[in-house]
Amino acid sequence: MTTTPLNQLLEKMFAGDARALARLMTLVERDGADVGTILQAISPKLGKAFTIGITGPPGAGKSSLVDQLTTLLRKAGKTVGIIGIDPSSPFTGGALLGDRIRMTQHFLDKGVFIRSMATRGSHGGLSRATKDVIKLMDAAGHDYVLVETVGVGQTELDVMGATDTVIVALVPEAGDGVQVMKAGLMEIADIFVVNKADRDGAPRMQTELALMLELKYSARHPEPGDPPMWKIPVLPTQAVNNIGIRELFQAIEEHHRFLQDTGELVRKRKTRRREELLSRVEYEARRRLTTRAQTDPALAQLLDAVSEGTTDAYSASMQILGSEVFRTA
Amino acid sequence: MTTTPLNQLLEKMFAGDARALARLMTLVERDGADVGTILQAISPKLGKAFTIGITGPPGAGKSSLVDQLTTLLRKAGKTVGIIGIDPSSPFTGGALLGDRIRMTQHFLDKGVFIRSMATRGSHGGLSRATKDVIKLMDAAGHDYVLVETVGVGQTELDVMGATDTVIVALVPEAGDGVQVMKAGLMEIADIFVVNKADRDGAPRMQTELALMLELKYSARHPEPGDPPMWKIPVLPTQAVNNIGIRELFQAIEEHHRFLQDTGELVRKRKTRRREELLSRVEYEARRRLTTRAQTDPALAQLLDAVSEGTTDAYSASMQILGSEVFRTA
Repeated sequence: MTTTPLNQLLEKMFAGDARALARLMTLVERDGADVGTILQAISPKLGKAFTIGITGPPGAGKSSLVDQLTTLLRKAGKTVGIIGIDPSSPFTGGALLGDRIRMTQHFLDKGVFIRSMATRGSHGGLSRATKDVIKLMDAAGHDYVLVETVGVGQTELDVMGATDTVIVALVPEAGDGVQVMKAGLMEIADIFVVNKADRDGAPRMQTELALMLELKYSARHPEPGDPPMWKIPVLPTQAVNNIGIRELFQAIEEHHRFLQDTGELVRKRKTRRREELLSRVEYEARRRLTTRAQTDPALAQLLDAVSEGTTDAYSASMQILGSEVFRTA
Repeated sequence: MTTTPLNQLLEKMFAGDARALARLMTLVERDGADVGTILQAISPKLGKAFTIGITGPPGAGKSSLVDQLTTLLRKAGKTVGIIGIDPSSPFTGGALLGDRIRMTQHFLDKGVFIRSMATRGSHGGLSRATKDVIKLMDAAGHDYVLVETVGVGQTELDVMGATDTVIVALVPEAGDGVQVMKAGLMEIADIFVVNKADRDGAPRMQTELALMLELKYSARHPEPGDPPMWKIPVLPTQAVNNIGIRELFQAIEEHHRFLQDTGELVRKRKTRRREELLSRVEYEARRRLTTRAQTDPALAQLLDAVSEGTTDAYSASMQILGSEVFRTA
């Protein structure tokens, strides 16, 4: 890799250079000293892309949905960034990439940028990195950013929280409605999709989801000043056959308009930026602490005492927070 | 609630008073000003309990396994603490409690202490609180602490990481082995249980899991100095009929001996205490920052600027970490 200066990389990326974008993503993933400069530089360019999260259990056909939505968006002349979060696995680091082979049609399309991210070896690192990669997609001028995650782990929920519209994809086999609630999907969905809608059990699942949503709405006691309510649609699709995709996109657009008209988009993004700051502070506090312990014998000794159980973690944390540990990067 | 002084509560708890233990748990969950005193006071008493985590998908029969293991441990004269983590749900806050009704037999047993914890409204708060509740169970003198979680979210993985032996319970319906890997369960299991082993597909699932484990072992290239390897057993059980429970407990004891004989127990617990410190520092940094923003106009202004998008989160975090924000609780 030649060492193009960072400002040149950034300029190229703003000018639409995909390779510069890819390299900036790598820098952001590595979380090196460049990250600050990159994030500061792209900050004024942010907020133009509309971001869509797609989540659900394995086998729900999320990649097909992303594929078809991308085709539709491209036909409408929109540029698309796609981020796939691969679940961690000790053997098949790139299991999901197989699913994405059918995305090949988009690989040659300059209006589509695809990035896979692995979940391994991160402690909050992946969700931080993913959010920064979403920003880079935005700063590079993509009209839409689609983020695909599997399941409902903390990382996935966290990443979904960084998107404007969340689509939860289910399949009839995913089990009854109670499991959906348990999995915490109910709380994050803006749009439900029952994919593989030609299968047995699909209409029942649709009805159940709709009933559960009705239950949720009727349990509400709206107060003056409450945020306006979005009625979550439940849509049948057959992504592999391109059935229901247009209706799904219409629902996405309706949700987008709802967010804009009610001021929710502004509010959501404000909350998100604040949360990003808090996470970044946590992350950086941990990083500085562990880095500094490598060169500061007193701090290393304190950490050892906690490891050995001779000092309790609470007292040690108070001592650390009251010290100068975080003052220098 | 009368206001028994904290030191009296602690003394009662050390003397085996269950109500004092319950009240200390509530204090720890609330994360008020008392937490530090409590954690410091119990610190010298820790490390005597052996902790067992039990996780797996909904419907795998985890509560039945906990129930049967508890009966077996009680017959052996051991005291047992049980912690159940309830998945969050907007409607059925106590869904899992229903499952625990069959635990009623243990409610009247003074050698068993049961605590349910809810996942709602936490940002890392639940896993912190759960770990502190495990400690209280330990400090109160329980021989075994059983922790039951559902699924493999970050919180659940985090909580499992705080136990000595992790049992992953699956049922034939849980899907094929690939899904197991994807879900990240493979990486945390010390013992696999295929529960409801009388059902169709159970033997196939057992074989598949065993094969996947063989694959994992054969992919290893052990180096001198590598930690010794534990061979993960795959055990069939029918928890509701009390079949296979004795064999499961034997496997738990074997794992316990393995951990002791190889020094892994000491190593694991050291790592765990260090990680606990780092999490506590993160958690406390966030808490102090948000608390202080309520009374410090300059800080509030900085947070607002980040919310509005006029200052980027990265620069703001650097500014905050370089300041005095964390110095005072």
